[in-house]
Amino acid sequence: MTFTDKLARPTAVVDMEVARKNLERMQEKARKHQKGFRPHFKTHQSAAVGKLFADAGIEKITVSSLMMAEYFASAGWEDITIAFPVNVREVEAIDALAAKVKLSLLVGSEEVVGILAKHLQHPVDIFIKGDAGYRRTGIDVEDIPVIEKLVKRIEDKPHFSFAGFLIHNGHTYHAQSEEEILEVHDRSLEKLARLATWKQSHYPDAIISLGDTPALSLARHFENVDELRPGNFIFYDVMQHLLGSCRIQDIAISVACPVVAKHPERKEIVVYGGGVHLSKEGVGFLGKTIYGFASTFNQSGWTLPDKRSYVKKLSQEHGIIHASDDLMDQVKVGDLLAVLPVHSCLVPPLLGPYLTTKGDWLDVMRNFSI
Amino acid sequence: MTFTDKLARPTAVVDMEVARKNLERMQEKARKHQKGFRPHFKTHQSAAVGKLFADAGIEKITVSSLMMAEYFASAGWEDITIAFPVNVREVEAIDALAAKVKLSLLVGSEEVVGILAKHLQHPVDIFIKGDAGYRRTGIDVEDIPVIEKLVKRIEDKPHFSFAGFLIHNGHTYHAQSEEEILEVHDRSLEKLARLATWKQSHYPDAIISLGDTPALSLARHFENVDELRPGNFIFYDVMQHLLGSCRIQDIAISVACPVVAKHPERKEIVVYGGGVHLSKEGVGFLGKTIYGFASTFNQSGWTLPDKRSYVKKLSQEHGIIHASDDLMDQVKVGDLLAVLPVHSCLVPPLLGPYLTTKGDWLDVMRNFSI
Repeated sequence: MTFTDKLARPTAVVDMEVARKNLERMQEKARKHQKGFRPHFKTHQSAAVGKLFADAGIEKITVSSLMMAEYFASAGWEDITIAFPVNVREVEAIDALAAKVKLSLLVGSEEVVGILAKHLQHPVDIFIKGDAGYRRTGIDVEDIPVIEKLVKRIEDKPHFSFAGFLIHNGHTYHAQSEEEILEVHDRSLEKLARLATWKQSHYPDAIISLGDTPALSLARHFENVDELRPGNFIFYDVMQHLLGSCRIQDIAISVACPVVAKHPERKEIVVYGGGVHLSKEGVGFLGKTIYGFASTFNQSGWTLPDKRSYVKKLSQEHGIIHASDDLMDQVKVGDLLAVLPVHSCLVPPLLGPYLTTKGDWLDVMRNFSI
Repeated sequence: MTFTDKLARPTAVVDMEVARKNLERMQEKARKHQKGFRPHFKTHQSAAVGKLFADAGIEKITVSSLMMAEYFASAGWEDITIAFPVNVREVEAIDALAAKVKLSLLVGSEEVVGILAKHLQHPVDIFIKGDAGYRRTGIDVEDIPVIEKLVKRIEDKPHFSFAGFLIHNGHTYHAQSEEEILEVHDRSLEKLARLATWKQSHYPDAIISLGDTPALSLARHFENVDELRPGNFIFYDVMQHLLGSCRIQDIAISVACPVVAKHPERKEIVVYGGGVHLSKEGVGFLGKTIYGFASTFNQSGWTLPDKRSYVKKLSQEHGIIHASDDLMDQVKVGDLLAVLPVHSCLVPPLLGPYLTTKGDWLDVMRNFSI
């Protein structure tokens, strides 16, 4: 009997011991650099995995939607930051949640502050979305006059507290090497210098919070920043590994996929496990786009992939594995393959509850509530 | 008051009148060519949308997983084909379902027939997965000796009935033009000629069933084929439209996404609606990869996109819309945009229940059951 024996369908499998070590390493880094730590829960989306963080003494968390904030509030978390520009259509539910927990919101314009001021009755902390080069959304962190005006608008409201700035350097994900990730990080810290000085003299209690797993995994200095806010690091994934953010043994999640056909003549194994299970996010590997590395399960987890077997194609329910000769020989129809996913954050909404390598089921939030 | 007024989060919106017309057109095509019709339900995944088909007199349906078969059996369907290579790890649940409905399974090897023979107590119909050029899985339709052996193995078992061949020409999706789609279709029909003759003389009751929406939408002849088995056509999507399979007004599904920020200086609108809502499947459009077309809602549905506004980038929860000047002027934070998705089959597992343009909620199956 092994922990996968009863699995019949594509299932997310989590190694909690690997996750715990990932947390320990990142928390130690924040401690060493004397930075605050507000980990992002958008990757695991699980109250049970959240308990790892609570056990490590963490009290402040980040989420990426109101729904996720509500889920973790129900699980007992009391200091929650929604690191996504406020969706004003949810303002009533935001107000209801603010009545129950210490809630921090994210804004990028005076217009949104105005709407919130009109509709929120309960006190909230408000962060400003700062853009330090990613150009997805937020205010340019060097545009102090615009920032100053927005902060005044926030501070103007008696039930709003200005909390600081959230920065996400998502462009580290486009880097081609560890050096490039560190260059993006360094440029971003430089861009934050003026903001840090201005903040220190005007709002010393406000913080500058930085949150992208590639840079926070690799960088060794964090000047002008008060807090680390990574998310993906708890599980990591193939994309992070190929970026250089983690070793392959640091990946804490795999997807169990039943083998439904073998085509040795073209070195392919067909698994039940497609785009509706693994997501359609691909990543470049040796000149190809791949959708995960494949390996096998053993008594206590999965075998580390040798990277010669990978998901080469995904349909809705089918995954096509390019298999090494070893894997082809070893595997038969009805076996399970372990697929290490390209982007672990996209897996929980698709697969639901996790099976741990110890054989326990862990709750995962549902992505819709109607 | 319009039907979208109460929407606060990313939501799939379906125009049932457009879907009904899509069904009518495809059903008429099958009738005109005197082909059977066993529509695939993997796109809508909804008992309520299934009712459209029942109302049109359809009795046989196709699904892509056992879970989907169980869901539609609960909704009253009694003749269900699982057009995915049998997952032998689910053999007990397959047997339980075969006790309740007329169940057809799909196999591609003698090995799997052997496993089924050992474990199934109830009668099932068995299709052979034929490969007419796609090379995803199945047996080459020209390899008559291998097919003959497999059919004999199936016919050998008293509770197995050999039903025929399922072919899916997924390579029509890689075509660059309508002509190319029709070439793939024509080559596939030619490849089926020998099989059709062999089948006619040995197993005249068995059928050859063909199922890809691009070819079935465009083609005007179907020799060597007995049955049409399309799925995506009920909703269509941006990929199908760009392939030439449908007009933009035939797309019956959009995703309502709240606007959370505007960046007119770079012609971008940020919406709540990311990879966990729209999937990460992209499609080429004017030399770029896009993730949907954007437009607005009106009283009775959505405005047809002018294709000048499109989703240019997706993060986990964010969608970045490249917006035309018109759209930028028209839209404000808190409004909803209508995003026509690239691949509609991937939307229901991500978004759950549909809102119709009449304001009704329609049930959608859950993708996991633990």
